[in-house]
Amino acid sequence: MSPRATDAPQRVVAAAAEMLARVGLNATSIREVSKAAQAPLGSTYHHFPGGKQELLARATTLAGDRVDALLARLLAEGAGPGLQQFLQRWRERLLDSRFEAGCPVLAAAVEVPVDAHPSAARDAAAAVFARWEQRLGDALVQAGHAPAAAAAQATLIIASVEGAVAMCRATQDIAPFDRVAAQLLAMVEHRAS
Amino acid sequence: MSPRATDAPQRVVAAAAEMLARVGLNATSIREVSKAAQAPLGSTYHHFPGGKQELLARATTLAGDRVDALLARLLAEGAGPGLQQFLQRWRERLLDSRFEAGCPVLAAAVEVPVDAHPSAARDAAAAVFARWEQRLGDALVQAGHAPAAAAAQATLIIASVEGAVAMCRATQDIAPFDRVAAQLLAMVEHRAS
Repeated sequence: MSPRATDAPQRVVAAAAEMLARVGLNATSIREVSKAAQAPLGSTYHHFPGGKQELLARATTLAGDRVDALLARLLAEGAGPGLQQFLQRWRERLLDSRFEAGCPVLAAAVEVPVDAHPSAARDAAAAVFARWEQRLGDALVQAGHAPAAAAAQATLIIASVEGAVAMCRATQDIAPFDRVAAQLLAMVEHRAS
Repeated sequence: MSPRATDAPQRVVAAAAEMLARVGLNATSIREVSKAAQAPLGSTYHHFPGGKQELLARATTLAGDRVDALLARLLAEGAGPGLQQFLQRWRERLLDSRFEAGCPVLAAAVEVPVDAHPSAARDAAAAVFARWEQRLGDALVQAGHAPAAAAAQATLIIASVEGAVAMCRATQDIAPFDRVAAQLLAMVEHRAS
């Protein structure tokens, strides 16, 4: 069955998020994204009148929303077990992609668009980071951490996972991720007990 | 005094590192870098026959060497005080650049070159991360941490500082960096005591 035309915009945004995660912001092209989404190029330009920058911002938000929904689901089991599951997903994603898949939100945060200013994707990344921090912080408070400590730990978790994923992609080795994950889990369990 | 022609290659590599830190790998152009370095474009192509990818790899290595030399100097004062000084430098760099200056090594780690495969800059980033991990790990061992814990903490420090810098650039706010820095310093001091 060929993909439905009415779903094309959603497929295009999802394909953009995946390309953003793998090659980065400036290397993501509307043409390649449309092709991956099996959407006609003209339809993509029609649905995203703001062009590539609008699409990148939408992709960043979509990726952020998906991770946030996953975190909400996993953290319902408790901060420690939820974080462990979440880290396990990231670990599998790195290994399954042979370290090609990174975080689209990080790409949006650090790259300056060649042909646009300011970066709408960067603003979307800021909103995503804030949402993730809130989500993790709330779960840590529920697990018994003091609010200020929980907020700080939430930031440390996001920052160190982002950095570890980048280190794994550079070194083509899962070891940096495993070292970081073990320490984050110890931190969450230690203070929550 | 106009810049010396014999220094041009070094100036070009330094300018490439700075542009890589600010806009990323694919947005860095040989033309802009040569201009910033006050080097003739023809001379840049002559000195870097491998073109942009060779220049990006050299820039990544230069940036890594500079940070490594700074770490060596600061950590000679002890792991805790050295890390504190190092984090203070990063903090100032973020604020002074209004969050425009990031880490060139991270950019090299996560972006896939539009027009080259594999990425020589990515390989250079892998070597840089390994060198920084060794440097920090050695200092932590000297401060009394057990070798395995020291190695893991070194990775966590690099990963979380990289991630925190990216979060600050997205949010245009120093708060994520400060939250991460406080926890890293507590970790280093706590276990070293």
